[in-house]
Amino acid sequence: PPGRKVLIVYAHQEPKSLNGSLKRVAVEELSKQGCSVTVSDLYAMQFEPRATRNDIVGCLHNSEEFNYGVETWEAYKRGGLSSDLIEEQKKVQEADLLIFQFPLYWFSMPAIMKGWMDRVLVQGFAHEFPNCYDSGLLKNKLALFSFTTGGSREMYAKGGISGDIRYLLWPMQHGIMHFCGVKVLAPHICFAPEYVSEEKRKEMLTAWAQRLKTLWKEEPINCSPEWYFK
Amino acid sequence: PPGRKVLIVYAHQEPKSLNGSLKRVAVEELSKQGCSVTVSDLYAMQFEPRATRNDIVGCLHNSEEFNYGVETWEAYKRGGLSSDLIEEQKKVQEADLLIFQFPLYWFSMPAIMKGWMDRVLVQGFAHEFPNCYDSGLLKNKLALFSFTTGGSREMYAKGGISGDIRYLLWPMQHGIMHFCGVKVLAPHICFAPEYVSEEKRKEMLTAWAQRLKTLWKEEPINCSPEWYFK
Repeated sequence: PPGRKVLIVYAHQEPKSLNGSLKRVAVEELSKQGCSVTVSDLYAMQFEPRATRNDIVGCLHNSEEFNYGVETWEAYKRGGLSSDLIEEQKKVQEADLLIFQFPLYWFSMPAIMKGWMDRVLVQGFAHEFPNCYDSGLLKNKLALFSFTTGGSREMYAKGGISGDIRYLLWPMQHGIMHFCGVKVLAPHICFAPEYVSEEKRKEMLTAWAQRLKTLWKEEPINCSPEWYFK
Repeated sequence: PPGRKVLIVYAHQEPKSLNGSLKRVAVEELSKQGCSVTVSDLYAMQFEPRATRNDIVGCLHNSEEFNYGVETWEAYKRGGLSSDLIEEQKKVQEADLLIFQFPLYWFSMPAIMKGWMDRVLVQGFAHEFPNCYDSGLLKNKLALFSFTTGGSREMYAKGGISGDIRYLLWPMQHGIMHFCGVKVLAPHICFAPEYVSEEKRKEMLTAWAQRLKTLWKEEPINCSPEWYFK
């Protein structure tokens, strides 16, 4: 709906890829609805995935023994995080919905996107004990993981060799998003696009555009072990 | 035992951290046993986590549309991967045991270590359909995930707020190591070391050294959904 803000965090090297097209479709469809859409194109930005001392501007809280979690928390409170992190945090703060668009790498997100999680969602900004899970600091936001796989739907079925695809969603959806208080919409998964026809791939794009039309009416999943492992 | 080769892939910024000490203890204890131990100290190496075109030396297989999986597979076959990857692959090839030592970041490994997985374990080297899972190309090797957590043992208990710690091991142990044919030893987990006494932390180091003494007699876990989710 008009006025809603969406941040798409996108991790693919090739604009012509299916991931690139899925991202474009989302920008188009959501813009058409009157949403304001921002994209963090991680490879194009050459986003830094490594969590290092460079993320803190100025002096350290404890220069004797570097603790990344403590240092970024302290730096956040005094406005001393590096500018790339402050910029990403602003985008997150403004967004009603976060869409993560990526190819599945090793049952998870690519390292460049994991680095976005590691570095952007710092304590003080995204969570701060006891404000985690349902009372996480990013509550009232939604997240959606949209990704492509190498393996087929059959491999990722419950009895399949790679196990139920929901098993691998636990760390991303529960461990990260739910921890920060974000409510999670059902994932959007395109299975094995490299092994289907061009026509099938077009259908995948259409299906995504279709889903986006009624996305704002969707209820979040029940982010508990039952959803993942039952 | 004498002659066994171990690769420790280590991801912590601070040598004085508990992770740094756990790494040192492993080097010492395994060396004492007569093993030859190599360490990939990822932060010290400034290891690149991003999967990009830079990983391929020379011309691309398909320069019209960049596909990282295809390009690194092709590059591997013609010896055209970047030198940092070739070096890591040599270390893996020679190792009988891989130990991954890291602090848990967001229910998973830090991005710098995820990048090691994404970039080093390329098709052709670590797996090549149908050689995956039990017939993966790195069979006859062992792996062990050794990590520290922020959350307590209670939070990571079966009914705990963060769910059974085994849930988050699935992508790392099954999705990566088992996929490559590597057998997985039980994880070694130090819960919430930041919130315990110095003495307790020393006990953690002693317990790790103790376990390493009989490590080679351990049986791998049964890396199936039952181990993780029952």
